[in-house]
Amino acid sequence: MGRLAREVAIIGVGMTKFGKHPDKTIKDLAREATWKAIRDANVDAKDIGVIYCGNAVDGLLSGQEDIRGQVVMREAGLAGKPIINTPNACASSSTAFREAWLAIASGMYDIALAVGFEKLYVDDTAKTTRALATCTDVAVEGNMGVFFPGMYAMEAKRYMLETGCTKEQIAKVCVKNHKNGCLNPHAQIQQEVTVEEVLNSKMIADPITLYMCSPIGDGGAAAILCAENIARRYRSDPILIAGSGMASGVFLDIDIDKEKKNSTELAAREAFEMSGIGPGDVNVAEVHDAFSPAEFTFFEEIGFCNKGEAPRFIEEGETEIGGSIPINTSGGLESKGHPVGATGLGMISEIVWQLRGEAGKRQVKSPKVGLVHNGGGIIGGDNAVMCVHILKR
Amino acid sequence: MGRLAREVAIIGVGMTKFGKHPDKTIKDLAREATWKAIRDANVDAKDIGVIYCGNAVDGLLSGQEDIRGQVVMREAGLAGKPIINTPNACASSSTAFREAWLAIASGMYDIALAVGFEKLYVDDTAKTTRALATCTDVAVEGNMGVFFPGMYAMEAKRYMLETGCTKEQIAKVCVKNHKNGCLNPHAQIQQEVTVEEVLNSKMIADPITLYMCSPIGDGGAAAILCAENIARRYRSDPILIAGSGMASGVFLDIDIDKEKKNSTELAAREAFEMSGIGPGDVNVAEVHDAFSPAEFTFFEEIGFCNKGEAPRFIEEGETEIGGSIPINTSGGLESKGHPVGATGLGMISEIVWQLRGEAGKRQVKSPKVGLVHNGGGIIGGDNAVMCVHILKR
Repeated sequence: MGRLAREVAIIGVGMTKFGKHPDKTIKDLAREATWKAIRDANVDAKDIGVIYCGNAVDGLLSGQEDIRGQVVMREAGLAGKPIINTPNACASSSTAFREAWLAIASGMYDIALAVGFEKLYVDDTAKTTRALATCTDVAVEGNMGVFFPGMYAMEAKRYMLETGCTKEQIAKVCVKNHKNGCLNPHAQIQQEVTVEEVLNSKMIADPITLYMCSPIGDGGAAAILCAENIARRYRSDPILIAGSGMASGVFLDIDIDKEKKNSTELAAREAFEMSGIGPGDVNVAEVHDAFSPAEFTFFEEIGFCNKGEAPRFIEEGETEIGGSIPINTSGGLESKGHPVGATGLGMISEIVWQLRGEAGKRQVKSPKVGLVHNGGGIIGGDNAVMCVHILKR
Repeated sequence: MGRLAREVAIIGVGMTKFGKHPDKTIKDLAREATWKAIRDANVDAKDIGVIYCGNAVDGLLSGQEDIRGQVVMREAGLAGKPIINTPNACASSSTAFREAWLAIASGMYDIALAVGFEKLYVDDTAKTTRALATCTDVAVEGNMGVFFPGMYAMEAKRYMLETGCTKEQIAKVCVKNHKNGCLNPHAQIQQEVTVEEVLNSKMIADPITLYMCSPIGDGGAAAILCAENIARRYRSDPILIAGSGMASGVFLDIDIDKEKKNSTELAAREAFEMSGIGPGDVNVAEVHDAFSPAEFTFFEEIGFCNKGEAPRFIEEGETEIGGSIPINTSGGLESKGHPVGATGLGMISEIVWQLRGEAGKRQVKSPKVGLVHNGGGIIGGDNAVMCVHILKR
């Protein structure tokens, strides 16, 4: 790992409400998020030097297999610029964000737009499920029918066996995130649930019940990145990108190859080392809770606590909004929603709002450092992409 | 446009033969190109810090909609690294190359792999044609049936009308490129053609006949990029990336909006300005001849001559291997082939070999500066992505 040529800050974010938007095309969703971010940043759109676009599966859903970014950005009035597409499963827009960060860090561009968009509610939900299953190796897992709820369930079973974590404790993660979602006007599901309701909802893949699963959804999210040395021209409160980590590697710790590195550990270590910040310095975080039990394992892999200790944090309320390390204040993927290509930038938007003190009813008290953890894709038990970003005010 | 933090060089390239490979999967093609480039660079694969993967349409052809790069790189033995997918139509792997260049320029990585791969020969050619048609806005051009041969034919008709260029002159481009392809062991079509044969081959979209069209194909191509200051640890003859330009904008000059910028002009100007090199300094170039007449219009838009002068260069042999500015020594897309996701890095491989003096029977005499022009996708008459790279020994 080298040393960055220059620092990069976030000067604008924006997102649509995540949810079911039968009246909006994917172009509408991308345009809305893009212009919200542009206005939030107080930039002139003509000063955006480069655009990175994250979308995961629209090729199979709408048939727009290629140049998806160019198609939606033309509709948004931003044709003419260099546009790069960065599909990377559920981390597509964290990848767009990271590439925008590198492009500015290189000295090539001063201002970049990163935008993610996805429309998963189509005529046929089975079609969406099949499309999402291509976030595996389709010639291997895809054809064997091994799919995300099953993979996350295997990981949860192992975790429960090794640590003594209970189903009730997992359900409490789900309860917390739904409670947070009720405070977020952008959240897809704004409804509280009880531990009993979570455990009694339909069994999907033991121990994962329906309420523990993130829903499919439509949405867009965007950020404007800027060279740190000129960021104050646009806003008095730029948010610094203090660290960025990206890795692929082991996701399921059931893997028999103990030499292989865990992808979250790799990405988090890279981001922490770059930033000079440790897990104990983080005041608020968004963690990839595609399914409730994953919040425990990812929380530990990031380094917030030792292995097996995560359930104690939920029991003692430490990951709630008033706790010592609030996790998924937005409602998380479970409650805010998971339109996969928009998810990463939706998480980044939440942390930017928290650091600015603009998170409304779900505001954490004066956070200085926030973390975003967003991953995607599984191949042969390995995680395809894991991104960790550390943001600082 | 800013100033790059540090210079980047190419220390290795590799490609498969382009063509019909029924016995090889897309994973095989990517692996072969990747390891050829790694061996050519004399690097240890573990020192590669990041991987960029270009593929255009495999989501619709094999169903591998997402994380295509991760799937093929796992097969190539390179799992565990950060992997970014950069689909951008026919310029997918030039985009991968450019992103790898930025990643090293930023200081974040010292060594990067850029790889492109595509498998267009599938069970059903109509399926391939439909997939390639998604390099437009599928909700607009795609559904109206406006497709690349027709778009390029419209542009050629305008050019002929405005400049007096004849069908025979266009056919001579096709003859030259097929002649070059016979000298290239990687070329898909190694067969000379005459002007008469070109003009008498099946009419596709007047004035474009069958032989003037690039064929579909299977293939892989790769490059290893390295921070310039350490490149000589690996090879004594690194090739400097002197300039890189990327733009979207007008492709068809039939567009009525004369204010809009031509995408090749924008990208070429950016690359030339960065490099301090002018069109007159270029000794050899690969130009995006998806269809023969495009070599004329792109040649002029790059700045090799004034508007309407390109046909004179073919008449006088100046763009042949022995001429003043040899174009498409590899055979070009028409003869070397056009497995779209691999095309850009195939072009870059050719220019690297030329600059090293390793181009065999098609070697240009002691070239110092080479140029690669690769574009892709058309939306509403605008070009979705145009990349120009200037390489220097």
